[in-house]
This record gives sequence, C-alpha cells and structure tokens, in this order.
Amino acid sequence: MRDVAIIGAGMTKFGRSPGDLMDILAEASLRAIEHANVGKEEFDALYVSNMMAGETAHQTAVASSLADRIALVPAAADRVENGPASGGSALKNAFLAVASGCYDLVLVTGGEKMTTADTDIITDLVATMTHPTAEYIHGVTLPAMGGMLTRLYMERYGLTERHLAMVAVKNHANGLKNPYAHIQRACTIEGAMSSGVIADPLRLYYVCPISDGAASLVLCPLDKAKKYTDKPVRIAGVGQATDVQALQEREDPTVLKSVKIAAQKAFKMAGVTPDDIDVAELHDAFEILEIAESEDIGFFEKGKGHLAVEKGVTALDGELPINPSGGLKARGHPVGATGVAQAVELFWQLRGEAGERQVKEPKRALSCNFGGFGNNTVIHIFERGW
Amino acid sequence: MRDVAIIGAGMTKFGRSPGDLMDILAEASLRAIEHANVGKEEFDALYVSNMMAGETAHQTAVASSLADRIALVPAAADRVENGPASGGSALKNAFLAVASGCYDLVLVTGGEKMTTADTDIITDLVATMTHPTAEYIHGVTLPAMGGMLTRLYMERYGLTERHLAMVAVKNHANGLKNPYAHIQRACTIEGAMSSGVIADPLRLYYVCPISDGAASLVLCPLDKAKKYTDKPVRIAGVGQATDVQALQEREDPTVLKSVKIAAQKAFKMAGVTPDDIDVAELHDAFEILEIAESEDIGFFEKGKGHLAVEKGVTALDGELPINPSGGLKARGHPVGATGVAQAVELFWQLRGEAGERQVKEPKRALSCNFGGFGNNTVIHIFERGW
Repeated sequence: MRDVAIIGAGMTKFGRSPGDLMDILAEASLRAIEHANVGKEEFDALYVSNMMAGETAHQTAVASSLADRIALVPAAADRVENGPASGGSALKNAFLAVASGCYDLVLVTGGEKMTTADTDIITDLVATMTHPTAEYIHGVTLPAMGGMLTRLYMERYGLTERHLAMVAVKNHANGLKNPYAHIQRACTIEGAMSSGVIADPLRLYYVCPISDGAASLVLCPLDKAKKYTDKPVRIAGVGQATDVQALQEREDPTVLKSVKIAAQKAFKMAGVTPDDIDVAELHDAFEILEIAESEDIGFFEKGKGHLAVEKGVTALDGELPINPSGGLKARGHPVGATGVAQAVELFWQLRGEAGERQVKEPKRALSCNFGGFGNNTVIHIFERGW
Repeated sequence: MRDVAIIGAGMTKFGRSPGDLMDILAEASLRAIEHANVGKEEFDALYVSNMMAGETAHQTAVASSLADRIALVPAAADRVENGPASGGSALKNAFLAVASGCYDLVLVTGGEKMTTADTDIITDLVATMTHPTAEYIHGVTLPAMGGMLTRLYMERYGLTERHLAMVAVKNHANGLKNPYAHIQRACTIEGAMSSGVIADPLRLYYVCPISDGAASLVLCPLDKAKKYTDKPVRIAGVGQATDVQALQEREDPTVLKSVKIAAQKAFKMAGVTPDDIDVAELHDAFEILEIAESEDIGFFEKGKGHLAVEKGVTALDGELPINPSGGLKARGHPVGATGVAQAVELFWQLRGEAGERQVKEPKRALSCNFGGFGNNTVIHIFERGW
C-alpha cells in the first residue's frame, strides 16, 4: 500500500445554511481545492458522503452532480452512504483508492442539508438506519436509544447526569472557539442540567443539534504531497467494523464492539497504541457516546471514561483533548458531513492551524465516526507527514 | 496494485420478487458465498450497491444491515450509490480495496426492489439523478431522454426503428436462454415495432422493464484465488468517468464522452484494445444505448453500430456477442443490481458456465454500466485468471 496524505481541507460554517445541498457541497469542496493549491484538472476521482439527499432533496447520484457543478469532469465520482458514518466510509474508500496506486489526486466531500425539513421528519429519517423490524417499526428513535444506553451506564458504571453536563460544557466551550461550529455559546453545568428532557435521562444539552454543513479534504500519495504543501498529514491507519444491528441483540449494549474492533484494526495498521494519540474527535451525537467510545477505543478503562472527563483529562488543555472542534454537540452533525469534518479538524490540529482551540503540538490524532447505533464504526488515525 | 480475482458469483431471478430488499440482497449474497466456497468469517468487507432504498423501503445504511442479516459481522460494510451505475461503482471500490492490500476477501452485492412502487413513482425516482434545475424540474424523465437521443441518432446516422427492434429481438432471444432473466419470451421485429409508444420514437420493446433483483460477487487477491477455485476471473481493468450532467450542455449528445473516457482508462489499465474483447455486457436501458455505447467503447465506428447489429455481429454466435444475458432489456434492470449482474454474467461466460447462452470460449470480456444519462460511466474488463 502506498502512503496517503491529506494536503488540503475546507468546510462550510455548520448551522442553518441558506444554500441547498449542492451549494454547500460545492462551497466546502472549492475551499479544500483552493487550500490544497491543486489544479482542478489534476483530480482523478471524488467521493461524496451523504446520507439522505434522496429523501430530503429528491436528488440521487449527488457525486456525479458535484463533479459537474465544480468542474471536475471527467473525474470518477461515487457517493458513499453509511448513515452518520458516511463521511468515515467515504474517506476510507478514497484512502484505499490512493493507496492502491489507481488514483493520485482525490477529493472527499461530505455534506448534509437537514434544516429544510421539520425536526420530526429528520428524526424519522435518521431512524431509517435502525433495524426495520426489531426497532424502527416499534417507534424507536436514535435519541431513545441514546437515553437507554445512558440509563444502563448510570446503573452499571456510576455515571451521573452531571457527567453528561460536563461533556456538554467542555464541547460548548470548544465550539465557542471554532468559527465553523453551529453552536457558539458557552453553557454551564446548571444550565445544561435544567434544559428540557429529550429522551429520559437525556436533556437538550446532551444531544447534538440538527445542522446543515459540508466538509472536504484533498488526498494524494505522500511521496507527491511535498509538491503541494510543507505539512502533509499522513493517514496512518484505518479500521472499520460492523456489529449486530438491533441494540437488544447485543450481549452487553454498553460495550460498543464495532468501536473496539475498528480501533484495534486502525491501531494495528498504524503500528501505535491508544497512548500514542494526542488529540481525538469522537462521535458525540449523544454525550454518552463520547464517554463510551473513549473507553472502547482504549483511552480509558471500561466504565471509567466519565471520571476522565471529571478530571479534565479530555479538556482542551488536558492530557488527551477530545472534540476540540466542539464535537457533534457544538460543531453540529450534518450526518453525511461529520466523518469528513472530524478529519478536517484533526488535519488543522496536526498542522497547528486550529486557532484559539489549538491543542499543544499534537503529533498523532484519531477520529471515530459512529454509524447506525454503533453497528458500523469507522476509525482513522492521522499523523504528521513532515 | 495487487491483481484481483472474482472467485464466486450468485444472483436472484430478476423480475417481481416476493421478498423485500434485504431478502433479495441476502439471497444473492448467500449464493455467491456458497459458490465461492469461502467461510463467512473470512470476509474483511462488503460493498452494497443500491440506488433508492431510502425512498422505496424507508431504509438507509443497508450495507450494515446486510452484514448483520447474513452474519458477516464484524466485516466492514459500505453502501455505494451512483444511480444506475451503483453496481459498477461498488465493484470498482471493492476492487481497489483488494488491490490496495487492505482487504483480502470482499463481497459485492447490488440490489434493488422496484416493483412495490407504482410505475410513475419509479419513473420519478429514477429521474432524481437528472439535473435538478436544468432537467428534473421541467419534467424530463429518462425515457424522454432516451427518445431524444434516439431521434438524434436517426437524423444523424441513418438509424431506423427497425434497428432498435433488432436489438430487442436479439436481447429477448438471449434472455430466453437465461434462467435469471426477468423477461423470458421471444419477440419478433414486427411485434416490437407494433408495441405501444413510451416516448417517441421509443416503443415498449425498446426500453427495459422495472424489476426487482440482486447480484453478488466474491473478490480476493488473484494469488490467493487458487485456494478457492480453479477458474478465477481476473479484473484486468477499471475505468470510470463523468460528463456534464445536463444533456443539453453536451457539445454532441450522441457522443457519450463518459463512456469513451471510461473505456480508454479501462483498456489502458488492462493493456488491451477493443479488438481483444470477446464478449460484452452493455447498459441497454434503452436499446439505442447498446448501439451508442458499442461505438464509444471503440467496438465499431461512430454511427455504424446499428449496421453491426444488422449484420449479426453482436448476436450470441456473432464475432462480438453483446448482452448474452439478455441485457437490461430482457434480464431486467433493478438499478442498484445491474453493474454487478453484468459482471456476474461475464464471470460465468469466461468460465464456460453460461449454459444455453454460452458464447464460444471467450478469453476477455467487458462490462459498461451507465449512470445518470451518461454523466457517470463505469467500465470493467475481465479475463481468465487461469
């Protein structure tokens, strides 16, 4: 396999966008292309991650459409869909395409336009990734699953609501320093704990918002990256794993097996251990997920992740900053964009370009993009390529 | 790049299936796995091609769902969508994943369940891949585009309606010999030419039907293929290219630029020319497309493809049999399945396992999977790997 590097990145501001899906995909893509300082005619392929354009925009084959819109024709174009882990899946396939030697210059753009539909419609569309007969048909939504997982965590590991609020306070504080974040507002423990209940015991501040947004990366072989940038970021490892779909069929629903296995694969490919990671972007669609993932990746012992939050280990100035971008909680979660946006943040962090939210000289970073309700996780490990 | 082989294949019968999408995806997958004689635990990844599960089945992330359904967990799973070329795109990405060295054993399954929805709803959903503002909004459907392209061909190259009927007669005759074909009925020139008009000058027999169906392949590195089969089929070349989306923006709409470029790329990778191809599966969603693609791939001179049909060159016993399976016209066109089904047919043909429709000892084969209305084409070249 050839070594693969990221040489450019771009994002739209997440939140409520005036543009349609194609507008935001184009905006993020053009920013990444400009940032990478490459000619459009150099692109061999593009990958677009998007979960629900067919349902929300009545549009399919959006990758072909983007190729035309931003004048990358005749580059190859594919859309990859893996629910909220679509971005991680698209990045993985772009990585493999470059690693194989088939393509040199590849664009990866993830995006979703969610705010045009009513919240209940979006909640329903997101739930289309649950098990059709064991879950969806019974009215189970993702927040409901998040609530049940949180309750189990409370019963089994001594997690309290205050810990969820601590994650929210941290991620809101980080988001306040991120010009691309949807929510740029500090919150307090008391404020979070007095917000409305979404799915008991989850309150408004323990779940991510519904956002529009897109994020984009430019990939090329590491040995050609120096032509474009002094600071290429190497994709050192990729791991992806599935789990049984229905939450009720899992031996222990608090153990995210797909996260565990994806992490093991990514660490093995990168030849590193959790101790070697300096900063991480985890998939906190619900704040409990940041805690659970931080354990199953191997950063903390099972059932102890909330204690790390309590001690400030995962804060911007802690030993292992998690979600410096604000995470899904504050940056927002346009589902098809998230996996790419995580990589964009870590690209900036490794290059020292993360502005006010810059963590101290990270050398290696990890992203965890969690699909379904943990039945398909994609983990990437990035490191300085210079 | 590692050499990649196909070691097993399976399909459902195309047509009106009693099962739902997951049922037919599972059926084709399990047949391919059984045919490849591999253990489920050996799979590293699966790719699912599907265009419209979100819209027709209200289900997303179908690749994760299939991994669970057929017990391939924890294999990585991604859905790839590229309109009617989704199958070609999924196969390409599976090929690259194995070629890269990242994965050894990969399943590729394409499927679509279309007959549950009314024909006008399906026609609308298929049209969601057209240009949203230049085409879709004006009511342009795919049959309308096919009709316009046919008319241009008649005016420019002397094609007559009789040539379209000849393609239909040939593909129906082939489909009659294919137990997996949706339409297993002979037709005559006169019968085709007296069928109802769909989109002038296209009649019922010049367009493909609406079908349910799934097709599946098992891939592994060629150097490991002998462990599983004596007759591995090597994927010798892959080419994919996009074109501008709106038909009206193309310099000459009768020239399928994405087909031309995709073919050039595939031939270059395989190190062969059109003369080296012994059998082909082309994307005849409309019979005019089989003719136009056969020219732009380089089998025949531009504007002369219909003469080759007239002379019987593309018949089952001709010099270059095209669509021995019956093509989209007779085998059927469950959109997400088609690109994979083309490869399944050529796998069988190269191995001499195509029964009554077997062409004479082919050594090399080509598939053309045409997405959008020619704005994203994927071409594969296959050859004997033994």
